[in-house]
Amino acid sequence: MSQQIPAPLDELREKIDNLDSQLIELLAQRLSLVAEVGEVKSTSGIPIYAPEREISLLAKRREEADKAGVGGDLIEDILRRLMRESYHREKDTGFKCLNPELGRVVIIGGAGKLGKIFKKMFLLSGYQVDILEKNDWDKAPSLFKNAGLVVLSVPINITSQIADKLTNLPSDCLLVDLTSTKEKPLNAMLAAHSGPVLGLHPMFGPDIISLAKQVIIYCHGRDAKKYQWLLDQITIWGAKLTMAEPTGHDHAMTLVQAMRHFTTFVYGQHLATENPDMKQLLDFSSPIYRLELAMTGRLFAQDPTLYADIIFSSTSMKEMLSRYLLCFEKASQLIISNDRDGFIEHFNEIAQWFGDSSQQFLIESRNLLMQANDSRQF
Amino acid sequence: MSQQIPAPLDELREKIDNLDSQLIELLAQRLSLVAEVGEVKSTSGIPIYAPEREISLLAKRREEADKAGVGGDLIEDILRRLMRESYHREKDTGFKCLNPELGRVVIIGGAGKLGKIFKKMFLLSGYQVDILEKNDWDKAPSLFKNAGLVVLSVPINITSQIADKLTNLPSDCLLVDLTSTKEKPLNAMLAAHSGPVLGLHPMFGPDIISLAKQVIIYCHGRDAKKYQWLLDQITIWGAKLTMAEPTGHDHAMTLVQAMRHFTTFVYGQHLATENPDMKQLLDFSSPIYRLELAMTGRLFAQDPTLYADIIFSSTSMKEMLSRYLLCFEKASQLIISNDRDGFIEHFNEIAQWFGDSSQQFLIESRNLLMQANDSRQF
Repeated sequence: MSQQIPAPLDELREKIDNLDSQLIELLAQRLSLVAEVGEVKSTSGIPIYAPEREISLLAKRREEADKAGVGGDLIEDILRRLMRESYHREKDTGFKCLNPELGRVVIIGGAGKLGKIFKKMFLLSGYQVDILEKNDWDKAPSLFKNAGLVVLSVPINITSQIADKLTNLPSDCLLVDLTSTKEKPLNAMLAAHSGPVLGLHPMFGPDIISLAKQVIIYCHGRDAKKYQWLLDQITIWGAKLTMAEPTGHDHAMTLVQAMRHFTTFVYGQHLATENPDMKQLLDFSSPIYRLELAMTGRLFAQDPTLYADIIFSSTSMKEMLSRYLLCFEKASQLIISNDRDGFIEHFNEIAQWFGDSSQQFLIESRNLLMQANDSRQF
Repeated sequence: MSQQIPAPLDELREKIDNLDSQLIELLAQRLSLVAEVGEVKSTSGIPIYAPEREISLLAKRREEADKAGVGGDLIEDILRRLMRESYHREKDTGFKCLNPELGRVVIIGGAGKLGKIFKKMFLLSGYQVDILEKNDWDKAPSLFKNAGLVVLSVPINITSQIADKLTNLPSDCLLVDLTSTKEKPLNAMLAAHSGPVLGLHPMFGPDIISLAKQVIIYCHGRDAKKYQWLLDQITIWGAKLTMAEPTGHDHAMTLVQAMRHFTTFVYGQHLATENPDMKQLLDFSSPIYRLELAMTGRLFAQDPTLYADIIFSSTSMKEMLSRYLLCFEKASQLIISNDRDGFIEHFNEIAQWFGDSSQQFLIESRNLLMQANDSRQF
């Protein structure tokens, strides 16, 4: 088959290259405008994530693009990618400080990955931040003396015992934790400290670049009006706040986190046991399976203690495990007994449970799988 | 917190809107140039997916973008998205026909989702295509008489029995199947037909828009030189061909397809059993869990028989299931006995098996999770 490049193709590609250079020029201008937007927002304390603005902007451009024969999805994908870049850059311009009268911010475990993120956000917002680590508890009394906010950012399994130590905070000092369970830490904080208490659970990993569009769940502790400023500050950072009641939160997290990570762990363990050739596995991968491999592999590139803490701190995990095992054995039985009809019957029942959301998920995942394939190289 | 929009912000947003209109203009020009490229390629038979061109183009633009302060990742993501659009459009311009002397193409099951895709590709490449469905086997003899290529695109569980019927094809007619297992169908085709035989396994779902960058596994049957034209034709369509040996292929697919779909099935069944509130589940979702939900939900938006066929046709599935169950029970034991150290120990063993690929998967998935978050709306 002829692989020779005909002359007209070279000319066309040259034209495309020139257009791409203009494209870069345009993007540079847009990013500098966005940087100015960041300045204005940070001085006037406007959240960097503006949903309504996004929606109206995208709707207008989609219409315009359709008229120009560009395609709405194309322009939406490109603009969303540009918005992400903008969020990542806006954050560097700093944020308005909503509580300048607050004393110092003390982050216990502030040298950890999650603690570092919050340290940075507080510093970018003009707060004074101190870090307290395992080995300098002797400094604790002096640091706490001037603290307006103490943030607990330590592994789940020691959160409560650290909280127990916090009995001498200033009475108006706000005490906050970032633990991925909420009931126990909140009770420990409320018992140790008589002042305002708030529970936060950031629903993102330590590898995020901006808080824009990231979810943070919060559970009320004590004196809500005394920490409203912090919730507003977090909104300015671009995060989406979701209120939850501690017990309900912890139960949901058994499913959303503990069970999810556990099944990924088992899937990885099974892979390692089967020991297939990774190169062949990738050669044979559909976009879906490659995504599966990536999502499994990413777990094992990270800190095992992090996942151990999430899984072992979940109170209702053992019960859920046995229920999951039942599902697995029920399904296996269908295979062992060659019950194809039974499989289809169960399949349809589950599809009914998903209802309309399965269609929505199909569209959502198709778009993602196309994006995954975009960056595929051979 | 003040949500009022200060005047300077409005002005800046107006400037951004104007830039975005220029952007759309630029994209329109680029797409029309790409359409011309498509014309040239289709007439001269150049594959629509040109890896070297992609790599060199992206490298140049990354460098240019870095100089302009735009950021290499940003321009690469945008250009990759543009390339996808281009592939999707190039396909409509048609493809060079590499075997104009070939008789008619008969697709058995050509009205099915996968059959339709290949029917379209053959038509776009100037071949004459006939469809043969269950109810018109009386037409079969006349259709086969002039057939240069017969494509088997029927459910796995009946592929072999249909193949057995194909004993009267012209001796030089090429017989090809699209089944996701390869050993049995190939043997059946080789037994029924004395002419050239080829086994294909397209590694993509029926919801793809273009074959560009999609993987198609092929297994040699008989008279390789008589079907080289078809492999070349598929390359022109933009797909990536990977050669496999039937038994090895089928064994790998138990892991890549059957087991993957089965675990997703179980995960969905468990969700339906736990019956959480979907709205709350989404509110509480980290980007990772939302992706998990989407990948699980998408399964149940599709045809159960498709997945039943893949799972139940896999020969070594039962053995693998029992090995998987062992992994699951071993891991559960760690939880039940609160063996946190044992969990971490196993975790590190699995991480060792993944080796460097886990880091690569971490980067790959991080990028995907950011893309998933881009389209998130609150």
